[in-house]
Parts: sequence; structure tokens; C-alpha cells
Amino acid sequence: MAIPIVGVIREPTPGERRVCVTPDAVGRIRSATSAEVVVQSGSGAGALIADDDYRKAEAQVVDTAAEVFDKADVIVCLDPPAPGLLRAGQVLVGMLSPLSAPESMADLAGRGVTAISLDMLPRTLSRAQSMDVLSSQANIAGYKAAVLAADNYGRYFPMLTTAAGTSTPATVLILGTGVAGLSAIGTARRLGAVVTAYDVRPQSRGEVESLGAKFLTLESVASAAGEGGYARALTDDERAAQQRELNEHIGRFDVVITTAKVPGKRPPLLVTADALDRMKPGSVVIDMAAGPLGGNVEGSVPEETIKRGDVLVVGAGNLPSEMAPAASQALGRNVSAVLTHLLGDGDLEFDLSDEINAGIVITHQGAVTHPAIAAALAPSSETSEKGEPA
Amino acid sequence: MAIPIVGVIREPTPGERRVCVTPDAVGRIRSATSAEVVVQSGSGAGALIADDDYRKAEAQVVDTAAEVFDKADVIVCLDPPAPGLLRAGQVLVGMLSPLSAPESMADLAGRGVTAISLDMLPRTLSRAQSMDVLSSQANIAGYKAAVLAADNYGRYFPMLTTAAGTSTPATVLILGTGVAGLSAIGTARRLGAVVTAYDVRPQSRGEVESLGAKFLTLESVASAAGEGGYARALTDDERAAQQRELNEHIGRFDVVITTAKVPGKRPPLLVTADALDRMKPGSVVIDMAAGPLGGNVEGSVPEETIKRGDVLVVGAGNLPSEMAPAASQALGRNVSAVLTHLLGDGDLEFDLSDEINAGIVITHQGAVTHPAIAAALAPSSETSEKGEPA
Repeated sequence: MAIPIVGVIREPTPGERRVCVTPDAVGRIRSATSAEVVVQSGSGAGALIADDDYRKAEAQVVDTAAEVFDKADVIVCLDPPAPGLLRAGQVLVGMLSPLSAPESMADLAGRGVTAISLDMLPRTLSRAQSMDVLSSQANIAGYKAAVLAADNYGRYFPMLTTAAGTSTPATVLILGTGVAGLSAIGTARRLGAVVTAYDVRPQSRGEVESLGAKFLTLESVASAAGEGGYARALTDDERAAQQRELNEHIGRFDVVITTAKVPGKRPPLLVTADALDRMKPGSVVIDMAAGPLGGNVEGSVPEETIKRGDVLVVGAGNLPSEMAPAASQALGRNVSAVLTHLLGDGDLEFDLSDEINAGIVITHQGAVTHPAIAAALAPSSETSEKGEPA
Repeated sequence: MAIPIVGVIREPTPGERRVCVTPDAVGRIRSATSAEVVVQSGSGAGALIADDDYRKAEAQVVDTAAEVFDKADVIVCLDPPAPGLLRAGQVLVGMLSPLSAPESMADLAGRGVTAISLDMLPRTLSRAQSMDVLSSQANIAGYKAAVLAADNYGRYFPMLTTAAGTSTPATVLILGTGVAGLSAIGTARRLGAVVTAYDVRPQSRGEVESLGAKFLTLESVASAAGEGGYARALTDDERAAQQRELNEHIGRFDVVITTAKVPGKRPPLLVTADALDRMKPGSVVIDMAAGPLGGNVEGSVPEETIKRGDVLVVGAGNLPSEMAPAASQALGRNVSAVLTHLLGDGDLEFDLSDEINAGIVITHQGAVTHPAIAAALAPSSETSEKGEPA
């Protein structure tokens, strides 16, 4: 077959500064596959990558997204473009959130587009780890959340002893100990804070303690470990009991970082107005789940810092975009690993018996091939439930 | 004599959020001296201290500055109020910058005001260290500068190895290794950056290396160690040679933090436009000397972040105010130590043979008592020269 062309467009979402394919990634894609890369001019601007950097990596830079759609066999993005821009036979690789948008997947299948969703990667599979966009971005977000908290907090994170006396270290509570939570723990610890973390999965205690943080045990909540490393959704009673107990604890911390984001769903409320009111003046709350559907913190506003009394509430649902250079570098590594896996044999037919492909290929050859999405589209199906991310 | 009253006013400078006397300091002053404390309502607001917190510490809270001036024997502040607000016999304790404002000192002397300047403390004296406002505030500023740099930088400070590859650590250059510079080194190191530092005083190499940073040696500049731990001013030739060599180095760093503030004088230019143009996209420069008289970085604007190409230049000349709660806590300790020293014997006559008093008492009993300020005011005197702060 002809040499496949990988196309990169400017991310369509306003404020999104990342790019999925960096010049380094262009090099890796070109050396590991037979593909060539075409990039829309300005795609790297938000991550401080110039068109010339892409040209040096031997990508072709074109002026418009339309030219990319015209030339490319594989379109790579974070948020997907409108389905109408794609044509039969094209492959779309992105963060497609198919579970929350199954109808869009049916639309793509109907257009003959192969849809590959990076957020559906089987994350527990060891050979898939280099492709894990959710992990790489959560790692960056957790780091940034701790740095952002330190920069918004009016006192030292570390304990420092000087001639003017000893400062007590900041006390930091991390809610949710998935990749983002663990990364936030590590960074807050680096800065010298005393860190406590809570998760509904009691088995995360070991990871938390190995990072030098304390694990907060709530008496009212039994284990809520779910499948695939995710937490299951709590029952209403469990959630109410958890909330009551958390409220008691939150007020004694200087900094709270919440990480319970649920792809495509309203995030669970973990810090209520009542809990905020119990916090000390100068406390800082970073809501990493703040987005259009809500957040973990009552009253948080996406991409804004608000003051509730003397407590700062930072809506920080897209921190990887704030660290676009680092986030894009990691994305580039993930995406080039995915493309190497997909295009290694040089064609655009994907073997759905491969465990990775079975997870990420949502539509192929005119059909919705992913069982969970096909089930979601079937008229009699129940919507599948997913809990808080691990 | 009557019980002396210590008065605290809201800082007059717009944007200044610190307060010199915290409720803790009220307690220390009341227990260590016979003084009572009166506080203008709202003085602690910028540092998130409520009037009630002062009342709990048994300070009297009054509505206006005029009431404080009326009641108090000792007025404590950072920036001094207009001399006309003070009366004969009153004591003014603050950061008075007498070397750059000798005429104001003469004015205060003429009004019979005793002027005590905290920035004139003999800093090498061991028993004065708990009173050292310049050190305590520089410590906070250096910490904050490193955190601010990390928050403005689009990549990781630490080297992190993840499934998506290894990130290289940020390279940070600190210019000036006084208290602020050393504090910035320590914090950047905590965050995992690779740190290099430069100072005109070669003997600071040991301190720099003990913090795990590299010392940058410029071949063109010999030692410029001056008196009292300060650097002496460089000659024009030395400065030009230093600049040429620094320009070569600056471009290879991701982050540059400049700390060469000179009280009351124009700070030396250390990072030129040419050097900025050599920096990589995404680099961050924190100018801790940025103020009304200029800064260490060409084009920096006080309290603003500007973009020069893809390099961020942060004008950060008053970082302690950004950390007002911590800075005020340290100030309160410094000021209560000074007041304990001054008021320990219960009267407002100060023994100028005491080494601390000889440094900080500028005017007393109607005369300018400090020799350096008296000399600056004498018609034939030459202005004393001071170099970059150590």
C-alpha cells in the first residue's frame, strides 16, 4: 500500500495548549513506521514549538486544518474534530471519550472512519504503559497541582528553622490516590509538606506510605475497589457517611488537593461548602476535577481562582495544558508508541484480537467494534457505570 | 515612667500586605516588656489576621491611624508614615532606608522623633540575628522565587522517570547568593532542579556547594567582597566583562533568578536583552530586584509578568508581600525581639554605646546620632557607596 500519512491539527478546544505530536515524536514515528507526518501550522504554538522545529524533524507543515484532513490517512488529536471533517477509510486517533459519546462513535462508524480512543487503553497491560496518555497527563497534573498549591499558599511548605524562629510545615490532604494523587503526594513531599492522603481503595495505603505520606482511614467507608484498578462508585449511604467524616478532617489541613475526575461524568463532590467554612484563613484547595460538569469542591469554577472567605479555591481541571511543553512531550511519546504499534506493519487494517487494539479501536470497517460501546448503543442496554478513576 | 504604648498602623504602601506585629508578637511584647499594644483596625487583613485575633492577644484595636499616632509612644511599620504625623518624643521603628533618605532623618530629628531603622541592624552580630528583618524577609523571598519559577515553568523541575520516558531536570541559575539566593537554591534543589549559582564574592562557593548547587566561576571578575558581608560595587570594566561572560552562560539555563537588590539604589543590570534573546522558548526569569528604580533584568516590570518572545520575565521585587502570612510571622518575631531589646528596661532613652542601638538608632533626642547618616547630611560629605547585598 501507499505510505501512510499521519496528520496533526491544532487542538480545536479553546485554551488547550498541548499538541499530541512533538518534533521528537515525528522523528520516532518516521523511524519506527513507514509513515510521513503533516502538521497544521501553529499546532505547537501553545507548547512553544515552532513550525520550523517540525520542519527540522522532516514533517511537512501546511497552512490549514483542511489540508491536513485532505492529505492524512491518520488524524491525531486530543479532542476530536467534527465527524463531518473526516472521510471513509481515515483513522482518527484521540481522546474520544466513547463511553460518554457513543452516538458520535456510531456516526464515525457510519462514515467509515476508524476511531481509536487513547482513553480506552487497557492500562493494566504492561506493554501498553508507554502508550498511556491518562497516566502521563495525570502525572503532570499531580505535580503541577502541588506546585500551584505551594505558589498560592501564603506560608512555607517545608519546616524551616531560621534566626527568626521555626516555621511549621504545611499540612496537605490529597483526596484520591490514582496517578495524579500519587504525583501530587510526591511533589508536596519534595517541598517538605506533611502529607495525608485518602482513597476509597484501602489497598492504596501501601503506595501512599511508600511516598512518605499518611493514609487517612475513614471508619464509615468499606473498600470500594472496582475493576481494572478503578474505584467503584459508592452507594448513596456510603457517600453521605464518607462526606460527614471527611468534613471533620478537612478543616485541619492547610492545603487540600482533590483528584477524583470521572471521564465524561459529573465528578463526586468531596469538599462541601460546610467543609470549606471550617478551613483556616489562608488555606488553599485545588480542584483537579473542576470542569463543565462540576468538580470535587463545592463552588469551584473551572480555570478560575475564587475566594470563599479567606480560603482560596482553585478550579484546575486541565493542568496538563498549563504545562503544555512537558505534557506535549509525554503525549508525543505516548502517541508515537501507539502509532508504532498500529502502523508497524504498514497498513491501516487493525487486528482486533490484539489486546491493546481490542481496547482502543472503537469503530473499524464501518462498524462499532468495541463491545462496551456497541452495548451502550443497543436500544435495550443499560449505561455502564464507572466509578472514580484509580 | 508611664507604661509605653506600641502602635501598629496599616502599611501605607499600596499593595503591601504584610504587618509588622502579629497577635503572637503582641503576646511576646506584652510578656517581655511592660508595653501595651494598640493596633489600627484592618492592619492584619493582608496577612489574613482579623482584628479579633489581635483582641484575643490583648491588643487594643482602634479605628484610625490617627488614634494610633495619638496614643502610641512607639510606632512600628515597614515603610514610614509622613514625618508630620509624628510628634516630639515619639519613637518610629521601621524600614526607614536612611542612607537613601538622609533628609527625612534630619526632618525627624528636627521634630524630636527617635528614628530606629531595622534595615541598619549590624547583621553580623550574633545576638542581633533574631532581629534581622532583611534576612527573614529575604529567606521568604528566595523560597517564593523558586516556587514561582516552578509554577511559571512549563516543564518539570525534577528528573522523573515514567512509562512515557524520562524528563530531564530543569537547570536553574541563581545570580547573587545572599540570604535570598541561598534560600532560592535550597528550594529549587528540593524540587529536584539542577542548580548553578553565581556571586561576585568567591567565598560564597562553600555555601553554594553545601546546598548541592554548582558555583559558576567567571574568569573575568576577581573577588568583589566588601565590608560587613556585602559585596563591593564593581568597577565599570569589571561589570562589562562580567556581563559579557554571564551572557554566554545565561542562554543555557531554563530558569534564572536574580537577587541583586541594593537598598535605595538602582539595582545592577545582570540579564540584558541580548541574554534574554539567547534563552530557549519557555525559559523563565524571576527578577527579585524589580522595583521603581529598575531591576536586574532588562525590561522587567515590577509586579508584572511580561513575555519577551517565548521567555517569561517576572518582576518580583516584593515577594515577601505575596507570602504575607509567613512574612508577617517572621516580622513579628524580629520586631518583638527588637522591642524587647529596646524597651526591656521600660524607658525610651536608648544607650547608644550598645552595638545594636548604635546601628539602628538614627535620630535621638533631637539629633541625627548615626555617624553615617550625619556624614551624609554634612555639606562636604561624599555619598557612601554600597555594593550588592550579600
